[in-house]
Amino acid sequence: MRTSRLLFLFLLLVPLSLQAASQGRRPSSTGRFSPELTRELDRLHKAALESTYAYSQLAHLTENIGPRLSGSSQAAAAVQYVAGELKRLGLEVRLEPVSVPHWVRGIESGEIVQFQGQASGITQKLVLTALGGSVATPLEGFSAEVAVVDDFDQLNRLGRTAISGKIVLFNAKFDKQMASQGLGLEAYEQSVVYRGGGPTQAARLGAVACLVRSVGSADYRLPHTGSTFYADDAPKIPAAAVTAEDADLIAHLAAQGPERIHLTLTPQTLSNEPSYNVIADLKGTTRPDQVLIVSGHLDSWDLGTGAIDDGAGVSAAMAAAQLIRALGLHPQRTIRVIAWMNEENGLAGARAYAADHSAELKNHVAAIESDLGAGHPTGILAHIDRPGLEVLQPLGEILKSSGAGSIRVTDGPVGADISPLDAAGVAGFSPLQDSRTYFNYHHTAADTLDKVSPRELAENCAVMALLAYTLANIPEPPQLKPAATAGH
Amino acid sequence: MRTSRLLFLFLLLVPLSLQAASQGRRPSSTGRFSPELTRELDRLHKAALESTYAYSQLAHLTENIGPRLSGSSQAAAAVQYVAGELKRLGLEVRLEPVSVPHWVRGIESGEIVQFQGQASGITQKLVLTALGGSVATPLEGFSAEVAVVDDFDQLNRLGRTAISGKIVLFNAKFDKQMASQGLGLEAYEQSVVYRGGGPTQAARLGAVACLVRSVGSADYRLPHTGSTFYADDAPKIPAAAVTAEDADLIAHLAAQGPERIHLTLTPQTLSNEPSYNVIADLKGTTRPDQVLIVSGHLDSWDLGTGAIDDGAGVSAAMAAAQLIRALGLHPQRTIRVIAWMNEENGLAGARAYAADHSAELKNHVAAIESDLGAGHPTGILAHIDRPGLEVLQPLGEILKSSGAGSIRVTDGPVGADISPLDAAGVAGFSPLQDSRTYFNYHHTAADTLDKVSPRELAENCAVMALLAYTLANIPEPPQLKPAATAGH
Repeated sequence: MRTSRLLFLFLLLVPLSLQAASQGRRPSSTGRFSPELTRELDRLHKAALESTYAYSQLAHLTENIGPRLSGSSQAAAAVQYVAGELKRLGLEVRLEPVSVPHWVRGIESGEIVQFQGQASGITQKLVLTALGGSVATPLEGFSAEVAVVDDFDQLNRLGRTAISGKIVLFNAKFDKQMASQGLGLEAYEQSVVYRGGGPTQAARLGAVACLVRSVGSADYRLPHTGSTFYADDAPKIPAAAVTAEDADLIAHLAAQGPERIHLTLTPQTLSNEPSYNVIADLKGTTRPDQVLIVSGHLDSWDLGTGAIDDGAGVSAAMAAAQLIRALGLHPQRTIRVIAWMNEENGLAGARAYAADHSAELKNHVAAIESDLGAGHPTGILAHIDRPGLEVLQPLGEILKSSGAGSIRVTDGPVGADISPLDAAGVAGFSPLQDSRTYFNYHHTAADTLDKVSPRELAENCAVMALLAYTLANIPEPPQLKPAATAGH
Repeated sequence: MRTSRLLFLFLLLVPLSLQAASQGRRPSSTGRFSPELTRELDRLHKAALESTYAYSQLAHLTENIGPRLSGSSQAAAAVQYVAGELKRLGLEVRLEPVSVPHWVRGIESGEIVQFQGQASGITQKLVLTALGGSVATPLEGFSAEVAVVDDFDQLNRLGRTAISGKIVLFNAKFDKQMASQGLGLEAYEQSVVYRGGGPTQAARLGAVACLVRSVGSADYRLPHTGSTFYADDAPKIPAAAVTAEDADLIAHLAAQGPERIHLTLTPQTLSNEPSYNVIADLKGTTRPDQVLIVSGHLDSWDLGTGAIDDGAGVSAAMAAAQLIRALGLHPQRTIRVIAWMNEENGLAGARAYAADHSAELKNHVAAIESDLGAGHPTGILAHIDRPGLEVLQPLGEILKSSGAGSIRVTDGPVGADISPLDAAGVAGFSPLQDSRTYFNYHHTAADTLDKVSPRELAENCAVMALLAYTLANIPEPPQLKPAATAGH
């Protein structure tokens, strides 16, 4: 899951429940779906909750393949593996080319080499990791004095005199209380601005390197990586995330007197690599030209094995197709499984798809993406117009029995990869997941298979499969914009 | 806190509360302490709960000094620092020599280089850390096939044919449920036998290296170090702890087919170093020859900064003396603060003290040690005889207001450093702490200052200070053995 303004979505959530939408009218629970569709969805629901298919796919992606950073051998292996699996399911599979960045992590080390009360021969080791896209220090590293700031305002108040020649630490604390109350994305958005923009802001004032406090809720000396974005018109300085504990240490010692850090980062940005979105169609019977996307992103960060971000999403998307096939169901519209490439550090896959398929987007009825882990889903988050909410009510009634019956409308895109489609007017959906622990592990070495509960992953598969099958079969799927003004 | 059979203590807890001991009689709450002592303890209690002294000491030990493994520059700096602080308090301070091991961590890396379903060019990196005392691999490491076992029985059933030439992984899972219910020490004891004895057991069957699943409850890709013990009559093979996640990965892949790991560990065992127990006396007024020890251990593992293990214990012991001095109180017996050296990998300090002071141990009325972090104390754990429990009842009544009024008797020593004294018949005490999260951090890089709550540390200081002052002043302190048979 990536830094993006679109992640403000929870701030924008329309507090409009399904129940509220249908206030005053009490339609029979699934009355507006055909009896046949209702029966099929019930079968799909039961099968999805009992299925271990997605978990076995996730196990392979994480344990037999591993981290899948764009441009890596593992990402290439994952493309071949997912394509092969989807072919085995009988889908029409193609690989659509995407040129992706190829950034590789190198040595990364840091230590506090001068501080108040320092005894002879003692330094303090730091636990840190380079931010994605960071430039390198010299091979032997360098030392500089530290300036600690809480935010951009404080940085700018200090100004060039105080910042020039320094290693700047942005010590913005991730709001754990907020995350523990289910508002992890909000907490993330508050802090991630320093990871994204901190290096450039510090460099504009003459800083020689930038550290950020890890954007996440772990307190296990665990650094969180993620992309940083250099402005073209500012110097590019090496950038790393220190753990929460190390940020505390640096800040405490800086408050006591002058402090110097020696920093070594040797990542490399290599030439772009050819890669692919994996696209697999389960052709519609009566309206094959109309497309419904169900997706997750196949690339991951390099520290963990990309289980919650986003092996789970890809596996759930694959499972949607597998379950529909296994039950012998036939969608009227085409269900297109997409395993996106390069969500984490470029969004090249999503951009390429939107560009390559621009002429066909009017035939895209909706796009579903799962990219917030595999926590228990309480329902569906939708970027659709208000009337669409009522159309989906019977689906909410069916999903209610697995605790996933809430359908909430928001005002922005609900997934990074489907945001270019959203911009083109395609309705967007995602599972509405329990994300309370997501940012403990997100972008860390601890994003591993054990963080996914097989049961909860199956619940997410149920949401993805039933939503996809519904959107592929109901006469009038919800739209992003009112029909009169929509692009399609 | 160290591996030791003595840690079975909770299994042996005499389920005898203070209330039960005094069943049928209802003495006035503090009726058996003199009014003066009661007033003094009340003042001490209030002062301890308001004091930030221990936390500031802990901050210095962890942040300005850092990890304090025996033989390191940091351990030497800590000795000087604590001695200086205790002198500043007006105590009679001396450094008593201890020869300590000097083991230094080197490069440590591992990767799975062959496994089922492996795509070209892909290996799986492991997160691991050398066990304390481990011998090294060659500088370039070596590769070998893996054998995964859950326990010693399974190892022995497999036998030499299956184990010879292999890297053995002991995959014993730490019982998190047990720990979360307050039985962390029991859970630890169940698993730590593989860390301590696994390498030797595996080597006896021809294994070339030994991995153990980290002994602890973290699931943040965090390896837990700790001592391993080589038998003299078995080959010494390199030994490391992998994280819980990596143990899962290795086990899952091993179940699918042959698996090879490349392991590199370059720790070194250097010559023993001279070091010291820091001993500081607050002389008793009327019975200065009678000694009451209040203590923690000054050395720590090298990955974290030794906050919960055991900077907190040392700081609380220092605070006991500081609080008594600050209030102008005068113990009748001598209160001896000890910062023990080398608890973690040798217990040399504790052994040296018991040997050097063997002739005086008959004058040691009791020894207090805190070495299970700084979680909220619910009271006191005591290795004393049953009648002693009643003697302490008034103290329990006073501590009750801060939630620390429970006094529990156990059948074995209550701290590693005071275990030689226990063996010599000296009554032993420790705070009875909330250890539910202790083994999340114990022996890891995440044992850092933020894991200690200032409020809870102050509560522990209250227990240590009031217990020390009580034992230094009541006419007949509880004894370890009935008076008739005790060594003193």
